[in-house]
Order: sequence, then C-alpha cells, then structure tokens
Amino acid sequence: MEKILVTGFEPFGGEKTNPSWEVVNALPRVIAGHAVVRECIPVSFRRGPAAVLEAIQRENPSIVLCVGQAGGRAKVTPEFVGINYADARIPDNDGEQPQATRLLADAPDARFSTLPVRAMAQAMIDAGVPAAVSYSAGTYVCNAVLFSVLDALAASQSTARAGFVHVPNSPEQACHLAKATPSMPVALMLQGIVSGLECACSWG
Amino acid sequence: MEKILVTGFEPFGGEKTNPSWEVVNALPRVIAGHAVVRECIPVSFRRGPAAVLEAIQRENPSIVLCVGQAGGRAKVTPEFVGINYADARIPDNDGEQPQATRLLADAPDARFSTLPVRAMAQAMIDAGVPAAVSYSAGTYVCNAVLFSVLDALAASQSTARAGFVHVPNSPEQACHLAKATPSMPVALMLQGIVSGLECACSWG
Amino acid sequence: MEKILVTGFEPFGGEKTNPSWEVVNALPRVIAGHAVVRECIPVSFRRGPAAVLEAIQRENPSIVLCVGQAGGRAKVTPEFVGINYADARIPDNDGEQPQATRLLADAPDARFSTLPVRAMAQAMIDAGVPAAVSYSAGTYVCNAVLFSVLDALAASQSTARAGFVHVPNSPEQACHLAKATPSMPVALMLQGIVSGLECACSWG
Amino acid sequence: MEKILVTGFEPFGGEKTNPSWEVVNALPRVIAGHAVVRECIPVSFRRGPAAVLEAIQRENPSIVLCVGQAGGRAKVTPEFVGINYADARIPDNDGEQPQATRLLADAPDARFSTLPVRAMAQAMIDAGVPAAVSYSAGTYVCNAVLFSVLDALAASQSTARAGFVHVPNSPEQACHLAKATPSMPVALMLQGIVSGLECACSWG
Repeated sequence: MEKILVTGFEPFGGEKTNPSWEVVNALPRVIAGHAVVRECIPVSFRRGPAAVLEAIQRENPSIVLCVGQAGGRAKVTPEFVGINYADARIPDNDGEQPQATRLLADAPDARFSTLPVRAMAQAMIDAGVPAAVSYSAGTYVCNAVLFSVLDALAASQSTARAGFVHVPNSPEQACHLAKATPSMPVALMLQGIVSGLECACSWG
Repeated sequence: MEKILVTGFEPFGGEKTNPSWEVVNALPRVIAGHAVVRECIPVSFRRGPAAVLEAIQRENPSIVLCVGQAGGRAKVTPEFVGINYADARIPDNDGEQPQATRLLADAPDARFSTLPVRAMAQAMIDAGVPAAVSYSAGTYVCNAVLFSVLDALAASQSTARAGFVHVPNSPEQACHLAKATPSMPVALMLQGIVSGLECACSWG
Repeated sequence: MEKILVTGFEPFGGEKTNPSWEVVNALPRVIAGHAVVRECIPVSFRRGPAAVLEAIQRENPSIVLCVGQAGGRAKVTPEFVGINYADARIPDNDGEQPQATRLLADAPDARFSTLPVRAMAQAMIDAGVPAAVSYSAGTYVCNAVLFSVLDALAASQSTARAGFVHVPNSPEQACHLAKATPSMPVALMLQGIVSGLECACSWG
Repeated sequence: MEKILVTGFEPFGGEKTNPSWEVVNALPRVIAGHAVVRECIPVSFRRGPAAVLEAIQRENPSIVLCVGQAGGRAKVTPEFVGINYADARIPDNDGEQPQATRLLADAPDARFSTLPVRAMAQAMIDAGVPAAVSYSAGTYVCNAVLFSVLDALAASQSTARAGFVHVPNSPEQACHLAKATPSMPVALMLQGIVSGLECACSWG
C-alpha cells in the first residue's frame, strides 16, 4: 500500500493547540487506497524541515502534504510555490529568527509544489470547502518546510509529490481576535484536506 | 410556556437557499423553557416587517429575534441599533429600491435593540462561536425589519424584547466568492444563535 | 458673515500629531462665504463634547463639523448617525473608560446628523476624494462628541446643522502599521473636507 | 551617465489612464546621477515582456524597474520574486488569457528580483511613503513581465539589476470602488518610486 505523509505543527506562540495538527491528527487511516502517516513537527526553521525529511526517509511516501496555519486567511489554500528565503518577524520555537536570508546556499530561488494544487483547490470547492490556490507561503517556518522538502525531493530525484496547505484560524482562536478575523472549524478544514488528498492520489 | 419568535429570510438575489433561514429552521423546539416559533419572512421592505409584526400579534412572544445574512462579515453579530432609514443598493424581492428615505415618518431616528446584545455576544463566544456586537445593521431590509419591530413594540408598550443577529456567508456561498470572503458553517451559526437565545431568556 | 465651526482632535495614544487636527488646522479662513472657526478638542468623553458646545455658544455657527480619525478606514466618511452610548476599548486622554453606558440619561437612543451627509460624500467624490457615508461612528469619543452636539442643538432648538466626518490614517501613520492598512494624505483629506463643507453651505 | 529604465503600463480594462504610467511619466529626468528612460508598455502577455526587453537592448540600463498596479493593495510594494507561470482571470489587451501555463519552457520555476527590495521598501518608508515587500506578483501580465525580464537578464549574464513595484489604486479609481478599497495619490506613489530608485542606485 502506498503511503501519504501528512504533517501538522506543534502549538506555537503560547497557544495550547495548533489547528494544523488537530486537522492532521483527525485524518482517516486510509485515503484513496493510501495509508496515511501522520507526523507532528516543530515550529522551527532548523528542526521543522528536518523532521519532515526524516519521516520521508523512514516512510518512503508517494505523497507528502504539510499543513500549517495562516491566521487571517479565509480559505484553505494549497501553496503553489516555496521560496529559498527566510525572514522571520518573530522567533520560532527554538528562539531563532532568521532575517533576509537564503535557506539553502546552492539551491534555486524557488520550487513549485509538485502536487496538483489547482485541481486540489477545485476538489475542495467541489466538496463545499472554501479553497483557493495561494502564490505565497510567506517567509516563515511554513515556507521553509515547503521549500526544503521540495528541494530535497528534487535533489534525490524522488518521484514523491509534495506540497503545503495553509488553513485559517479556528473559531476558538477567532473568538479572541478582531471582529474581521475569518475562521473555519477544524471539521471543515478536515473535509478540505481529505478532498485535496483524494485528488492528489488520483492524479496522473 | 413563554414563546420565542425567531425569523429567517427567504432566498434572495438568485440564491437557492438563505443561510439565515437554514439556521432558524434548524433550531430546537424549546430553548431555556421557551417554545421556539419559527417564521420565514420575505426580503421585502414592505412585506418583511409586516410578516414579523403579524407573527408577533399571533404568537405574543416574550422574545423576538430576527436573523439575516451580512455577506463579508466574519462573526455572528447581534445588532445594537436599528435606524429609521432605508437606502437600498439593489432592489428587494418585490422590485422595490427605496433610496435615502425615512422608514416611518413619525418615529424617532433610531431605536436600540431591547435584547442584551453585549451579553449575548459574550455567551456566543463562551460557546466557542466567533461573535461581536455590531453597531450598524445597514440600510437594507434587515435594518428595516429591526427598526420597524422595535418601533412597533415600543409604541404598543409591549414588554417583549426584540433584536436582530447577522450571520456570515455559509461555506457553500464562500466557495464562489473572493478569496478573502469569510464564512461560517450553518451548524456553528446555530450554536451561536442558541447560546444567544439562552442568554436572552435568562436575562433580567 | 455666517460661521462654520470645525473641530479636530488633540494627539492621542502616544502619537505626536493627530491628522484630524492637521487637516482642520489647514482649512482656509473662508469657505463658500462662511468664516471658518477652528477648534482643537481633547480626546475625552467629558471634555471633548463640552469643548465643542462651549465653542458653539461662543461662535454661534450655522454649521458645525467635527473631524476625527478612524484607523483602518480607506475613505473620508461623513457619519449618518450618533448613538447615545459609550463603550471604550481603551482609556481616553483623561484615563476614563466608560463601558456599556448611556451618554445622556434623558436623551433619545440616537440622532441623525443634520448635515446633508449623502450629498457631502458625493461632493467629495466629485472632487476626486474617495468618500462614503458611514452608518456607525463607533462607541468612543468621536461618537460621544457627535451625539452630544446633535442632542444639545436639538434641545436648544438651534437651526445650526451639525455632523461628524471620519478620516483615514495618514501615510506617516500607515508606514508603521500592517501592510493592509489604508491611508490618505492630509492634503487629500483637506480637499474632501472643503468640498463637503462647500456642499453643506449651499444646502437648502 | 548610467541609465535607469522605468516602465509603466498602458490603460487597461476600459480605464482611460493607468496610474502606473502616470507615475512613471512624472519621474524626473535624472535620479542619483542616472538618466531616467521611460517606457510605456502594453498589458499583454506577449508584447509586454518583449517591449521591456527591446528597451533594455536599446538603452543598456544598469537598473530596470517595471511599475504596475495591484488594485486592493494599500502600500507601494516592491516584488521579491517572479514566477514562471501564467494564470489569467481576464483577457489581456490582446484578448489572450493563458491559464495554468508555464511562461518559459526551459527556465527555472522562479527568479528573485535583483534589486534590493527590502532596502527599497525601507527607503520609501523613510520618505513617508507606506511600503512593504510583497512575495507574490500574482499570475497576470505584471508577473510575466517581471519573470521574463529577470530570466532574460540572467541568461545573458547581464549585470543590470531588475525588479517590479506594484502601486495601489489611485484616489480617482477608488472613488468608484467599494468603501474598503485603499488608494494612494500618484504624487505619493511618485515619491515612493523615486526614493526606491535612489536606494537602488546607491546599492552595492
């Protein structure tokens, strides 16, 4: 049975939970005939990408999907591209705060996700989940994980497809945020991630 | 058994359903010892307020809550005030489009909701539903319903408390709207409305 | 020569200047044949309204326009209505922070501006200044000033017309605020305020 | 005397003017000892990039800055990266509407701007112009111009530095757009572009 590796993040910034891990943790064991392997990774420029790469080595998945949270977004957003750049506005969970720096000295400027992000967003919408392709994963740990994984898979000539999906704030979080802050229940995010993964599994 | 009258709106603007009615229609029969009476009202400056007032006459409720949709909002928002004014950007379901006009010639400029909106918003938040008091119900049919009901109850020296709650777009709607459009599942709106009504029932 | 009284606010919240006063201070001495009297008023629930009323007593203007700032707004917004309510998220410049309280015990719930706000917004647009009528002046000092002035003028059966206009953040402020914060140069706000006052002067 | 090539766009989408060209056309003849060459380019996936490359061939500039408009943005935003991808929501001025397609078959996925975008944004802020680095130039003609120019310069091993800056809607445009649409006068955009170019000229 082929495997899907899906990662979410540990709590961050004083929060007790991280919706990205809540949604990943709630995934079914099997999606479209693929075994789902879950991994909770740290919000760390150094240890985050390493944790995903270690899990890829161990599990040899055919699909890798990392899930993170982008507060302020209203939809589930598959990321189109990861960039070889870090610029942190706040320290990560290790206290590191890289500024205006290249992630990997000898890697290209950016790499496109190898998941069918456009079709995945459409599959989510078809399932009733607000979704849209995003063209920037930011310059924080989420982007670092995306770029590092894409670059490592490309360098090793792996056939695994990889990508990243950002989810909105949860309603619990939005309760304590400004009036205009959008949110989405974890159950709806989950439906979106499952629909996106089913799409990715059946792709070419 | 005292009664709560809760109204939602008919579909509008070519939509097949109106989340405001979906949520009202899903309410339990009894909330905090009050019988819940549901009424679906038209998106009409003339027939909308009339339908609520007719139901109030018929049912003699102690609490009246009208629910409508405010596309673009991210939270469930109890309205603080209705104003004696109509200014329609688009025609209502009767083709009427009042512009810059007073709703009721001899009524005051505005009336505050007689429901405990602040406490209701807090009760919704305590239940995990993003909510906030809103200080403008707009100038369309929603506001016309709110103001007309408040004015009629004040004029008749009724002891019934009345108010209005706006809900966001549903996820189904947001799927076809811009990337930044917030949404909320009807089930979560429902939890908010129920928590708000429980609060109103136990108030003073 | 008839008079226009225009007020702006003192600096607030640690800022060195307040764009509302900058724009008021830059007004010409005469607009549409009316002498322009400027007044800088404190960001205080108690002293702000009092300062405007004192100036009205002293100057006997036929038009009163108070100008304040609403950070986050993108346009110049004449306010349609002031409400008899205060709910302060942060203390004013006197350290007062009224919460969920009526401003004036024996006054009505709200009063509409007696300036032609719709025509004024259109006059601003005609002059190339982004503008729109607003239906909520909030629940802070700006609204308290608006409501108190409207109520005092109504109580004294004055023929003076009064109202409030909110202006956006200035570019200098926006430089230090989030990427999505709109701004408007004081010179453009000024053009808007002048066009709005010309409209008000020529009104019925 | 070294040259700066600055491009703006022709009117688009039925508009009579394009603020991006208005601002470019208003630039001084000399900035920081560099001669400023202006070029107005078409909103065309095919002819837009070609026009910039032809001007580069003709003028041999040491700095290339393309300016475009991103309606909805509140700040002047130097773009960090161009991506090798086109996905047009509406047809360009030639009626072309590429969808989900690579711009250049043999080019990398993306290229970083070779202008000092971070320092340029700071220089704009220091000049009082709201500015921020943007990490997505979208998937329309603006991005196509940016990526194509960066790729051509890299392929030819040119030492010219190149980049793109998006400007907000002008106030004239915002007058006819939704209440929340931010805008910026062309004169302020101009100050930002000049400050950004001065920064780029003095860079390394």
